[in-house]
Amino acid sequence: MNKKIDIFDSTLRDGAQGEGISFSVQDKLHIVKALDELGVPYIEAGNPGSNPKDLEFFNEVKKLKLKHSHLVAFGSTRRKGISVKEDANVQSLLTADTDYVCIFGKTWDFQVKEILKATLEENLSMIHDTVAFFVAEGKTVFYDAEHYFDGYCANPEYALATLKTAHEAGAKTLVLCDTNGGKLPDEIMQMTSVALKETGAQIGIHCHNDTGMAVASSLLAIKGGADHVQGTLLGFGERTGNANLSTILANLQLKMEYDCLPEGCIQNLTSVCRRIAEITNIALDSSMPFVGYNAFSHKAGMHIDAVTKNPSAYEHVNPEAIGNERHFLMSEVAGRSLVIGKIRKFDPNVQKDSPVAAAIVARVKELEHEGYQFEGAEGSFELLMRKNMGKYKPFFDLEYYKVIVEQPIEGVSSTAFAQVKIGVDGEMAITAGEGDGPVHALDGALRRGLQRFYPQVKQIRLTDFKVRVLDSKSATAAKVRVLIDSTDGETSWTTVGVSSDLIEASWIALVDSFEYKLIMDVEKRFKAYL
Amino acid sequence: MNKKIDIFDSTLRDGAQGEGISFSVQDKLHIVKALDELGVPYIEAGNPGSNPKDLEFFNEVKKLKLKHSHLVAFGSTRRKGISVKEDANVQSLLTADTDYVCIFGKTWDFQVKEILKATLEENLSMIHDTVAFFVAEGKTVFYDAEHYFDGYCANPEYALATLKTAHEAGAKTLVLCDTNGGKLPDEIMQMTSVALKETGAQIGIHCHNDTGMAVASSLLAIKGGADHVQGTLLGFGERTGNANLSTILANLQLKMEYDCLPEGCIQNLTSVCRRIAEITNIALDSSMPFVGYNAFSHKAGMHIDAVTKNPSAYEHVNPEAIGNERHFLMSEVAGRSLVIGKIRKFDPNVQKDSPVAAAIVARVKELEHEGYQFEGAEGSFELLMRKNMGKYKPFFDLEYYKVIVEQPIEGVSSTAFAQVKIGVDGEMAITAGEGDGPVHALDGALRRGLQRFYPQVKQIRLTDFKVRVLDSKSATAAKVRVLIDSTDGETSWTTVGVSSDLIEASWIALVDSFEYKLIMDVEKRFKAYL
Repeated sequence: MNKKIDIFDSTLRDGAQGEGISFSVQDKLHIVKALDELGVPYIEAGNPGSNPKDLEFFNEVKKLKLKHSHLVAFGSTRRKGISVKEDANVQSLLTADTDYVCIFGKTWDFQVKEILKATLEENLSMIHDTVAFFVAEGKTVFYDAEHYFDGYCANPEYALATLKTAHEAGAKTLVLCDTNGGKLPDEIMQMTSVALKETGAQIGIHCHNDTGMAVASSLLAIKGGADHVQGTLLGFGERTGNANLSTILANLQLKMEYDCLPEGCIQNLTSVCRRIAEITNIALDSSMPFVGYNAFSHKAGMHIDAVTKNPSAYEHVNPEAIGNERHFLMSEVAGRSLVIGKIRKFDPNVQKDSPVAAAIVARVKELEHEGYQFEGAEGSFELLMRKNMGKYKPFFDLEYYKVIVEQPIEGVSSTAFAQVKIGVDGEMAITAGEGDGPVHALDGALRRGLQRFYPQVKQIRLTDFKVRVLDSKSATAAKVRVLIDSTDGETSWTTVGVSSDLIEASWIALVDSFEYKLIMDVEKRFKAYL
Repeated sequence: MNKKIDIFDSTLRDGAQGEGISFSVQDKLHIVKALDELGVPYIEAGNPGSNPKDLEFFNEVKKLKLKHSHLVAFGSTRRKGISVKEDANVQSLLTADTDYVCIFGKTWDFQVKEILKATLEENLSMIHDTVAFFVAEGKTVFYDAEHYFDGYCANPEYALATLKTAHEAGAKTLVLCDTNGGKLPDEIMQMTSVALKETGAQIGIHCHNDTGMAVASSLLAIKGGADHVQGTLLGFGERTGNANLSTILANLQLKMEYDCLPEGCIQNLTSVCRRIAEITNIALDSSMPFVGYNAFSHKAGMHIDAVTKNPSAYEHVNPEAIGNERHFLMSEVAGRSLVIGKIRKFDPNVQKDSPVAAAIVARVKELEHEGYQFEGAEGSFELLMRKNMGKYKPFFDLEYYKVIVEQPIEGVSSTAFAQVKIGVDGEMAITAGEGDGPVHALDGALRRGLQRFYPQVKQIRLTDFKVRVLDSKSATAAKVRVLIDSTDGETSWTTVGVSSDLIEASWIALVDSFEYKLIMDVEKRFKAYL
């Protein structure tokens, strides 16, 4: 049996410190679901006392049925000079109502004296009191030793004393943090093995990427005896980011014979990473190891020839092991098997080599070339399949739409006005809408028109709207991809539209959303008759 | 004295295999100049025989007066079954007219037999003949042992035999390549020290980033005895990229006490990296270690406080050592002191407790609450400060704008039409624009109107356009934040706008961009009179 490593994701806490990252409560819940699907055992998610958004999150997250993941609330040791009972930040951690908490404390004597302005003894009491408090409350405690390696280099006895204090107070795991990210991997390995020997506790590792070696440092710490590793799935984090857990996971499981995730879960790695990037509204680095679009892309003709003869000629692992794919950048031959798999999931009667399958593959390629991405836009993808299978009939014809946007006027709430003319079975409807912006107005007008024929359109609520500028170097003439999440209270679906006109891209995604709902209703009624 | 490491940059050869990278001859010449300024001793740049662009490059590059760098031509061992004299690729390398050549050959028995379809003995002759030929021509030869580590694991005797063959034929340096990028750093260290012991030659290392550890592997190879390191300055390369030389250089010189660059040159690292990113037309990863915009950015309030007290609290090296800067990102978490710091950088006469400072802080907080984020939008931030300091006068008054977007019609290119009416000193201009979408049309109309009064507006080029939907669960009625990057060829600036109407948000950012340019020009003219 392989050795087990505990995986601890901090995308929602340390990851949120990354530049340009700002999660809504909904974003956070979506990320928790994605990490649970991947099988990540521990998800760290802030302090409910720090702001009302975190409080709302912890209330909402309890309602999710998670299969694999445990939530961890994060806070610091009590402040100096007061008891844990008096410390509002410590107490507020309890309102998160999690079984696990992660407490960070100071290791480095310089930080204790200069930044905290406390005595070394007082810092030890702060660590002891806080850990012991949560243990007494029935929590499992991870102890993050901030600046462990810098602290150990400056004053090894004191650094070890902080660890021993946390351990004696009942912490389950002592996590050595390279907070400034400046230590080199071999130093980290050596100091990790000392910490293990001196404390006998479970040792964890938490690295930042300031030397560009956070992954290597984490893996060498594991060689040094750590069996708990913290990071963020996509490497999000302050400065140069935290250790990239997707890279660590793939290295550990595929190359180093460790177990981290439940059986079969590592195959979801690529799709979960891409989903989290979408939720965060950040373009996933295409050269990210293992999960990036180009991680298995070959451009040089000689490499393509060799890989075609034998993939191991220029590939270190099989891309399918993490759900990624081989791409040949010069000849567009990628993705076919992936699309076929999706078609057969939708309709197992479709044969791999049938003209229908070929037509769908060709259409997907065409649209991807235009900037579409169906990863995560399953609603639009199903419509696309139906259109090519003869399982689709338009619900309405568009005669025209027109949107007018004017400069906002003080006291007038709407700035945008839309007019839509649609026809259903020869009957016409011309409707208008207004709103906070052009897409809002268009949504209102189309909805009003459709409701006349399909009252169930009222049930549709748009829950999310994302805009990604593709090739943003073309500035205001760039193509945009719009993703719309919708729900009717029972089901949720996502649709996509692409155009260099943001209004048209939104229109395409809107129409797909409404049509998807109408098709689902027809199917439901049909099944009720069977 | 510190130990010396030879730096060998392959941005122009292996880097050109990166997705989306395509260098013109001019680009390549600019990159050579930048690398020379940094003091990189070896620059690898392709084979003049492979295409006419490379031939033109080698002719042109001879005309440059380089201070530090030597050009290296790159090619493979001769083909099987013919002599070096008969091999056009080998012969064409001579036309590069460089003092240095780099020759790659096969190490891995599987590759020799399966991909090359040659015998093991024949491969050794190919290596020997090619290296000996260039040595006889008076060249200094670097020998790249392709797939060295995979080859060594499969058949160590044969892998070492290829190295010894190249060495006996006169190669100066034997470069061990982790071509598939799949080996782990400690394996690489161990096999490097064996190669050194067995050959007694100078050993080089060439890593790819498929495990996310190319930097660590390169540095551990150096610990194992290598003293020549290959990579690409920004990590460009096929798949997940090559070893990032900027990170390696900074680690070696600042943290490991090696010498790589001439005295004082490492301070140019950040500016040279950013210049090469510009030349390549690729956005430099803002979280790139040492040289990224965010490598020394602090967002968490607690970190900002501590760094202000003592930078080493959260910084592993001094950013000035590589010509980078500390940044405090503005966010909900960051405080008053940060804004004051920025105000005083702009105008040192403003006192911390002055009403002006208080007014600006209050305004920033108000705008942040509305969804603004000034991190990275320095253009808009400067305008905001000016407006509160009496250092601003509007350049035009807006009477109205109006945008009409219609459903696209086959064959008609524009879908959006805008009309803008502005006044400057009582004179009115009504102008129109059309475009691919509403913002594009609005940009055109406003630009046309302003040009009548301020011809220099023509110099403004919008280089990037980003849309972020805030609180996207309000769907189409959600607020959006628009960021626009602009340049006039000399300076670049970023502006921001927020509204629940995307058009208005874009308008705000557009107007800020145009006003920022006009203010800069006024200041320049003013300074010219001083």
